[in-house]
Amino acid sequence: MFSQTDFTHMERALALASRGMYTTTPNPRVGCVLVKNGEVIGMGYTQPAGQDHAEVQALKDARARGKDPRGATAYVSLEPCSHFGRTPPCAHALIDARVEKVIAAMEDPNPTVSGRGLTMLRDAGIDVRCGLLANEALELNIGFVSRMTRRRPWVRLKAAATLDGRTGLPSGESQWITGEDARADGHAWRARACAILTGIGTVREDDPQLTVRAVDTPRQPQRVLIDSRLDVPLDARILDGAPPWIFHSADADPARIEALRDKGAELIELSNEHGKVDLPAMLTALADRGINELHVEAGHKLNGSLMREGCVDELLIYLAPSLLGSAPGMFDFAPPETLDARPHLKFHRIDRLGDDLRILARFAEANVAHELR
Amino acid sequence: MFSQTDFTHMERALALASRGMYTTTPNPRVGCVLVKNGEVIGMGYTQPAGQDHAEVQALKDARARGKDPRGATAYVSLEPCSHFGRTPPCAHALIDARVEKVIAAMEDPNPTVSGRGLTMLRDAGIDVRCGLLANEALELNIGFVSRMTRRRPWVRLKAAATLDGRTGLPSGESQWITGEDARADGHAWRARACAILTGIGTVREDDPQLTVRAVDTPRQPQRVLIDSRLDVPLDARILDGAPPWIFHSADADPARIEALRDKGAELIELSNEHGKVDLPAMLTALADRGINELHVEAGHKLNGSLMREGCVDELLIYLAPSLLGSAPGMFDFAPPETLDARPHLKFHRIDRLGDDLRILARFAEANVAHELR
Repeated sequence: MFSQTDFTHMERALALASRGMYTTTPNPRVGCVLVKNGEVIGMGYTQPAGQDHAEVQALKDARARGKDPRGATAYVSLEPCSHFGRTPPCAHALIDARVEKVIAAMEDPNPTVSGRGLTMLRDAGIDVRCGLLANEALELNIGFVSRMTRRRPWVRLKAAATLDGRTGLPSGESQWITGEDARADGHAWRARACAILTGIGTVREDDPQLTVRAVDTPRQPQRVLIDSRLDVPLDARILDGAPPWIFHSADADPARIEALRDKGAELIELSNEHGKVDLPAMLTALADRGINELHVEAGHKLNGSLMREGCVDELLIYLAPSLLGSAPGMFDFAPPETLDARPHLKFHRIDRLGDDLRILARFAEANVAHELR
Repeated sequence: MFSQTDFTHMERALALASRGMYTTTPNPRVGCVLVKNGEVIGMGYTQPAGQDHAEVQALKDARARGKDPRGATAYVSLEPCSHFGRTPPCAHALIDARVEKVIAAMEDPNPTVSGRGLTMLRDAGIDVRCGLLANEALELNIGFVSRMTRRRPWVRLKAAATLDGRTGLPSGESQWITGEDARADGHAWRARACAILTGIGTVREDDPQLTVRAVDTPRQPQRVLIDSRLDVPLDARILDGAPPWIFHSADADPARIEALRDKGAELIELSNEHGKVDLPAMLTALADRGINELHVEAGHKLNGSLMREGCVDELLIYLAPSLLGSAPGMFDFAPPETLDARPHLKFHRIDRLGDDLRILARFAEANVAHELR
């Protein structure tokens, strides 16, 4: 159905899309390649929100090179949009440019618009195909897909531990368990996330900035703190710089709410019946605020709560070749009654990073892909 | 120094050596290839103790094929022995056969005999070279090398855990955390070991047979139990079949010693100042009994004690893609005072086995190779 040439061009479109890894949020990362008579005449990828999408960039690129896109084939890593958002629909732009053929990697995951862009193109007489390198395209926008199909971000929980699963000493000392390569890699995962989440325990223990530093990015992810009773010290580093979002429960002291608002923080109350932050509702709230990928760096208590409440999709675990014995672990939750009832994941990727090991594992039920089929 | 042909023949010698993986103990696994005029005329590998060594097997093989080994090159994965043990020295056999050249992967690790076999060959006018694929040869006989150079076995500690380092439920339920592939692989590691060690805690909790079942082997490893006060129930499965060795302390009840001797077990008293079994002394005792590779399958307490007392060289960890939260871990020992003081390992091999991950990690100080140089 697709030729080797099609694969090559779509791979290029995916590579272009990944150039928007740190910047397109809340939009998906999309790449577009225009090919005419076997020649690549234009390339583009999604610019930061409010600016050009990939297709428009590619058309502009072709024109800037003095090439006419009429009769060309457009390879796009996601179905062209069909609606007016902050920019006009890309399907219109392709139709206006009179391309002859459009090959899309995957449909738009938003169930209410899925397929409309392709239909619009077909109705304009364009030869449309879909499904080339769909898995790769999905991986690139797993957070966007998650938000569109499940109304929650793709939640990636990061932890660094020794081979026996321990994250630090009982004293709280945890810097550093892993090596430089692993730590830099952790910052790259932060950079691609729309938001970084932590809990009050980690703020108290490590007072993290929760910013991206080890890699170059023009955009800092939104910082999110879970702090039921609003115990965050007013001089905590998470309150410096861009205002964080702080989720708290109804138990929080109104005076604290005022004080934190004065510091610029955005306060969001979401209680569950135990007087804690309602974590699943928080995910919905984050999705509604346009968070595609949520990166969690928290302590064993919040990690355990997120796990217990089914709020984690993927683990990003750095394992150091070391042991710490009876030291604190990664996840504080009550073991299941029986082994059969334990949470099941799948190892997604295993890589070595310096002296350490990086493990990406996904929860079996976290698969968003099947919802696309 | 060595040609591509040399590499090819030595790789074959190593492959032959590995056929003795389950059987040669306490002798090393050795392979030999005889090559004359570019033709392989004989091949052999070490037979079970008391029977032919690799060189003699290869010479017999050549003669059985009607080939004269005179003038041939012998590729051997270990320096030919120079002493009369249960069999005559292999160096003699090669000299008698008038081979022209001997290429050895590595010297005999025994410091008191190392190099003597090669010298004996040189003195007989044979062209001798050493060091081809030495690392591979060392890996094959890491236990033998350990016993010869350190007077202790190579201690490989096996554990199966979830990704968060937990080995079972608080109830003791631990079967099964990993899948079939990992479990069968665990039996292959048991099979190559000279002995399998466990503790009284595991006997009480799991009542293991501690035999090799999932892979085919003509030899069962010696079973070893650490049981300071001799609490092992007389109907424990470890007492069935071939007699185990049981290490106990001076605190053990003489009546229990008698009862266990009546069951056929061999009792060995080795106390430390705390009334427990002296673990480092136990390793010496095992080495003196010809144990090259010791395979440990124990609970978190004995694992922790072995770790704390520096009695582990290598970890063989199977990680299952699952989590168990606040369940028991792999190693019960007090964390170090500072992170810098934590034990350092190196990841040696990482493999996927079915849905699980197999991690081989070695303690930095466990390297026996440098003692050969």
